Amino acid sequence: MFNKYDVIVVGGGHAGCEAATAAANLGSKTLLITMNMGTIAQMSCNPAMGGVAKGQILREIDAMGGKSGIIADVSTIQFRMLNRSKGPAMWSPRTQNDRMRFAEEWRLTLEQTPNLDIWQDMVNRLIIKDNKVCGVQTSLGVKIESESVVLTNGTFLNGIIHIGEKQMGGGRTGEKSATGITEHLVELGFEAGRMKTGTPPRVDGRSLNYSVMEEQWGDTDGGKFSYTDTKTTLQQRCCWITYTNDKVHETLKEGFEKSPMFTGRIKGLGPRYCPSIEDKINRFAERERHQIFVEPEGEKTVEIYVNGFSTSLPEDVQFKAIRLIPGFENAKLYRPGYAIEYDYFPPQQLDLTLETLLIKNLFFAGQINGTTGYEEAAAQGFVAGVNAHQKVNDKHELILKRSESYIGVLIDDLVTKGTEEPYRMFTSRAEHRLLLRQDNADERLSPIGYDLGLVSEERLQKVKDKISNANAIIEKAKEIKLSTTEANPFLEKLNTSTITHGTKLYNLLTRPQIEVKDLRVMSSTFDTYLTQFDNETIEQAEIKIKYESYFDKELEIVEKMKKMEDKEINPNFDYNTLTSLSKESREKLIKIKPRTLGQASRISGVKPSDITILMVHMSK
Amino acid sequence: MFNKYDVIVVGGGHAGCEAATAAANLGSKTLLITMNMGTIAQMSCNPAMGGVAKGQILREIDAMGGKSGIIADVSTIQFRMLNRSKGPAMWSPRTQNDRMRFAEEWRLTLEQTPNLDIWQDMVNRLIIKDNKVCGVQTSLGVKIESESVVLTNGTFLNGIIHIGEKQMGGGRTGEKSATGITEHLVELGFEAGRMKTGTPPRVDGRSLNYSVMEEQWGDTDGGKFSYTDTKTTLQQRCCWITYTNDKVHETLKEGFEKSPMFTGRIKGLGPRYCPSIEDKINRFAERERHQIFVEPEGEKTVEIYVNGFSTSLPEDVQFKAIRLIPGFENAKLYRPGYAIEYDYFPPQQLDLTLETLLIKNLFFAGQINGTTGYEEAAAQGFVAGVNAHQKVNDKHELILKRSESYIGVLIDDLVTKGTEEPYRMFTSRAEHRLLLRQDNADERLSPIGYDLGLVSEERLQKVKDKISNANAIIEKAKEIKLSTTEANPFLEKLNTSTITHGTKLYNLLTRPQIEVKDLRVMSSTFDTYLTQFDNETIEQAEIKIKYESYFDKELEIVEKMKKMEDKEINPNFDYNTLTSLSKESREKLIKIKPRTLGQASRISGVKPSDITILMVHMSK
Repeated sequence: MFNKYDVIVVGGGHAGCEAATAAANLGSKTLLITMNMGTIAQMSCNPAMGGVAKGQILREIDAMGGKSGIIADVSTIQFRMLNRSKGPAMWSPRTQNDRMRFAEEWRLTLEQTPNLDIWQDMVNRLIIKDNKVCGVQTSLGVKIESESVVLTNGTFLNGIIHIGEKQMGGGRTGEKSATGITEHLVELGFEAGRMKTGTPPRVDGRSLNYSVMEEQWGDTDGGKFSYTDTKTTLQQRCCWITYTNDKVHETLKEGFEKSPMFTGRIKGLGPRYCPSIEDKINRFAERERHQIFVEPEGEKTVEIYVNGFSTSLPEDVQFKAIRLIPGFENAKLYRPGYAIEYDYFPPQQLDLTLETLLIKNLFFAGQINGTTGYEEAAAQGFVAGVNAHQKVNDKHELILKRSESYIGVLIDDLVTKGTEEPYRMFTSRAEHRLLLRQDNADERLSPIGYDLGLVSEERLQKVKDKISNANAIIEKAKEIKLSTTEANPFLEKLNTSTITHGTKLYNLLTRPQIEVKDLRVMSSTFDTYLTQFDNETIEQAEIKIKYESYFDKELEIVEKMKKMEDKEINPNFDYNTLTSLSKESREKLIKIKPRTLGQASRISGVKPSDITILMVHMSK
Repeated sequence: MFNKYDVIVVGGGHAGCEAATAAANLGSKTLLITMNMGTIAQMSCNPAMGGVAKGQILREIDAMGGKSGIIADVSTIQFRMLNRSKGPAMWSPRTQNDRMRFAEEWRLTLEQTPNLDIWQDMVNRLIIKDNKVCGVQTSLGVKIESESVVLTNGTFLNGIIHIGEKQMGGGRTGEKSATGITEHLVELGFEAGRMKTGTPPRVDGRSLNYSVMEEQWGDTDGGKFSYTDTKTTLQQRCCWITYTNDKVHETLKEGFEKSPMFTGRIKGLGPRYCPSIEDKINRFAERERHQIFVEPEGEKTVEIYVNGFSTSLPEDVQFKAIRLIPGFENAKLYRPGYAIEYDYFPPQQLDLTLETLLIKNLFFAGQINGTTGYEEAAAQGFVAGVNAHQKVNDKHELILKRSESYIGVLIDDLVTKGTEEPYRMFTSRAEHRLLLRQDNADERLSPIGYDLGLVSEERLQKVKDKISNANAIIEKAKEIKLSTTEANPFLEKLNTSTITHGTKLYNLLTRPQIEVKDLRVMSSTFDTYLTQFDNETIEQAEIKIKYESYFDKELEIVEKMKKMEDKEINPNFDYNTLTSLSKESREKLIKIKPRTLGQASRISGVKPSDITILMVHMSK
C-alpha cells in the first residue's frame, strides 16, 4: 500500500514538524504520521514562543535551516526582546502568537515540503529486525516500511488528564491519548517513566476588566526570530499583568485536599520551573502574590490564556479563586486548567544523535525524552530528523557542542545526565552562555546548516558578509580618533569621564555609558561610514567591541577544555577491561556510552579519579 | 460555579452554532457546550455548502437572521448557481469552501455574540424535574442549570468508525465519541436508533495528475448565499471531474467480503442519496462509471476531497482502487475513507418546534434527529434555538409552513413521518417548490425574522423595496409597447415569431427566447428606466413575469389546501374519545400529536377516512 520510506516521523507537534521537514528537505522520502491532521502543531500550552534561553534556541534552529522561527514570525501578535537592560548573552527574543495561524502555517509548510507525505493514523508498534527499526504498524493495522523512525509522541503516550479528583484519558483536553506504543517499547527493553505537566484555565476575554491591570505592549521597533526575510501581517496586540493575592491563595488552599498532586494521585514529577499555582503557594508560602500574565490567544479571538495560573485543582475551586484576581471578578471560563500525566523514556537511553542505544535507526525527540517547552521539542526534532537522514545515507552525524549552541547543551544534558522532572532550558545550564547569544546564532550555526544542505549558499554568504562588515566597523572604530575638544563636551553630557588626549572610538565604546548612536553624533565620519550597513550588523559590531574581552576569555576556556571535551571514546569500548574503574563508574559508562571524555566527565556518579584512569588509558 | 442560563446548547457543529447564536441574539443567556473548542463548526464531510434544495435552505436561514450563509460566503473559494438552464425553482446556489476559514469564522462569530458563553466539556446527563429539563451534568461532574436545553450531538453519540473489518470509537476520525447521553435519554423513555454515514479518503493534491481531468470553475460573475453585504476575500479555486471505471469497480469488489456494510457489521442505515462507492457499484451494477468530483479543501491547502468516493472498504482496497481512477495513478492518501455509526432519536418524538414531546423545554436538532447535511442541521439548529428562547420567554412558537419554506418541509417531514435513513432535502420533497425559490427566500421569510427580532428594520425595508421595485419594473414592462418595426428585426434574430401589432414588453418577456437583456436592447426607454435598479431586483421582476402564471396556479393550490392545512388540532385532544377512529390511526395520532389537520393527514398509517372523521368532529 505504501512505498518504503527513508524516514517515518510519528507525531505532528513541534518536534515532529521540525523532524519531518528537516529530513524531507535533506532529500529523505519522509512520512509524517499524526493522529489528527486537524490538530497539527498545536501550541498546547501558552500562545508564545521564545523567551529566556528558548529564544536563543529558536534562532539556533533557524540558523541551521529549521522552520520554527519562521512559523513563529509570521504568526506573531507581539514581539519583545527580554533582558535588554542586561548583557547581550541575556537578550532573549519572545513572541506572543496567534495559536490558529501558528498551527495553520506549520500545516501549510508541511504540505508544501517536497518528499514529505502525511498519513493520519495512530502508530502502536514498531517493526524491528536484528535490533534495527524497519517500519511501523498502526491502529488501522497498516504496516509501513522505513529505514528509520523518529518518535515524537509528546504528552499522548497513555496520557491521563487530572482535574481535582476526576481523571480521564487524553493527550490533550478533548483529544484521545495514544496507547500501545509504551508497552511495546518496554517489551523491547526500554525503561519508561511518568511525568506530568499542566495548563491554566482559558477565559473569555470579554468578561475581564482590563482597566485594573497593567498593559504590556511589545517592542515598538518590532523584531523577529528568523535570520531570513519574514514578516507578520497580523495586527499587534497587548498583554496585561495582574496579581494573585491572599484571598486567591486561601481559596485555592481549600481545594488542596482534592488536589491530584498533593494527594499522590499524580505519580509523575512536574516541571519545577513552570509550577502550578498550587505548587507556588505551597513552596513559596511567604510570597504574598504571584504575577499573572493575561495573554491573548490570537489576533482576533477573545480567548485569553491565564499564564501563571496553571492548576489541576477541582474546577469549582479554580472558578472561585480566579474571580478573586483583580480584573477577573466576572471572569467566564472556557475550560478549567488541568494536569496531564504521560509516559516518557529517560533520555540516557539515547546517543547524542538522539538515536536510541537499544534499537538502531530509532530516534526519540521532544517530550518523550522528558523535556518541556515548544523550543526544546523543536530543537530535538530538528536534530533527530537530520540524524535520521544522515544515518540512512551514511553521512556524518549532527552532534552540536555545548560550546557552540544551547541545543548542544540541551541534548548533552539529557543524554548524559538524564532528567527526573520535565527539563527546561535556562541560560544558567550553559557554561559558555556568553558565546551562545541570540545575536550570533547565525555565525555559530549557519555553516553547519550549509554543510548539511539546509542553508543556501546565498544565505551563508549573508552571514559571512555580516561578520566581515562587523569586523570592518570594528576596524573603523579603531581607526577614528577623537580629540579632547571633539569628545569632551559629549562625554560630560553622557556622565562619563572626559579624555585627556586623542582617543579611538573603539576605546570610548568600551565604556558602559556610551553606545554607537552616541559615537555617530560625536563623529560625522563614523556616522557616514555606518550608513552602508544594516542595524543588525552595526549591533553585532557594538556587541563585539563592548564585550570582546569577556568573549576572548570565554573562548580561551573553551580552547583549554577542548582537549578533554573533544577527546573521542570508541563507542564500543569495553569498560570491563579497565578493572581499576570503580563499579559505579563502570556501570554508568556502559549505560550512557559517552562519545567523548568531556561527556564522560559529566555523567553523574562517574568519579573524577575514574576519568583520570580513562585519560591515561586513552593516551596509551 | 455557573449562573443559571436560559438556553444551553450541547454541541458545536452546524446545528449547535446556529441554535446558540439565534438564542443569544434573541436575548437569551446562552451557553454552548462543546467537547473541543478547537474543533467548532467542522465540515466533517465535503468542503462545500448549498447545492440543490440545500442552497435554498441556506438562503432561508439567512433571510431569518441565521449565520450559516454569511459564514459560507466569507469562506467561499468557488461559487456556482446550479441548474441555471432549468426553471428558477431549480436554481440552487452552491459554494466550495475553505474548511479552516469556515470553522474559524464560526468560532469568531460565536465569540463575538453577546449573551453567548462557551464551555468545553462533555454533557452526559440532563437534569430533569417534573418532566421538564432544568440543566445538564457533564463528564467533569459540573451541574449547570438552565431553562431549556438544545441537544445537537451530531455523529458523536456512541460513534463507531468502521474501516474494513476494523472498528474504533470516535465521533469523527481522530476524535472521541460522546458516551452516556444516549443511555440516559433511553432511561428517560426516548426511543433511540442507529444510523450510519460515511466519508471518502483525503488525498495529497500534489500527487494528482489534473491534466487528464475536466476543470470545473465557478461562475465568473460570482454570487453568494446571504442577502446581506458579504464578500469572500479568498482566491477562487477550480475543481476537477474524473470518473471511475470497470477496473476501479472490480478492485473495489475484491473488498466486499470485508465490507462492514455488506457483512452486516454496520446495523444503521446509510444515506440513500449520498451512497458509498461500494453501494453505488452494488445497486447500479449496470453503470460503467461514476462521477468523481475532485474538490480542494481550501484556498492554500493541497488537501483534496474525493467527492463521490465515500467508502468503508479496507484501506488497502481503497488505495488500490483509487489509483485506477484517471489522474489518481500516483495518488497519495492522507487518510482512508470510513463509515461511522451513531445513535439518533426517531424525530416523531418531537413537536414541530423541535421540542421533545416527552420532556418539556428539551429540543433536538441536527443529525441526532436522523438527518444528513450541514444545511439541514443548521436549519434545525436555528429553529430549535429560536423556539428554546421563545418558550423560555412565553413568546409565540416558530413553526414554518410547508408552503413557505424548505425548512418547514424538512421539519414537518421529520416530525410527522420520521425517517428510517439519514434524511436529506430534495426539491421533490416540497409540493410547492415553485414558490420556495432561492431568489425569494428574503420575501418569504425576512418578515418572520423581523418579527422575531433577528432581522433589522433596515434589512426588512430593503426586502420591501426589492418587492416594490420589482413590481414597478413589471408595471413599466406592461406600459411600454413596441411597434412591429421596432420589435421585429430583433425578434427574427432571436428566432422567435414576429409580431403583427404593437406589443407590450411584458408579453414579449413571457416568451422563453426573450430575456430582459434583449428588451434593454430593443427599448432604450426600458433600458434607461432599469439603470436605477440592482441586478437582483431586475432578475426578480424577470422571474415573476416569466413564471407568473405558474406561481399564481401554485398559490391557488396553497390557498385551497389552507383550510385543512391550517386547521389546528388541540395538542391535548384525547383521541380515545373518538371511538370511530381505527386503532392504527388513533395510536399514530396519539404518538405524533399533530398540530393541524394537514399534518395529521401526512402521518403514515392514518387513513383518509379517519381524517374525515376528525374533520367532522372538529367542525362541530
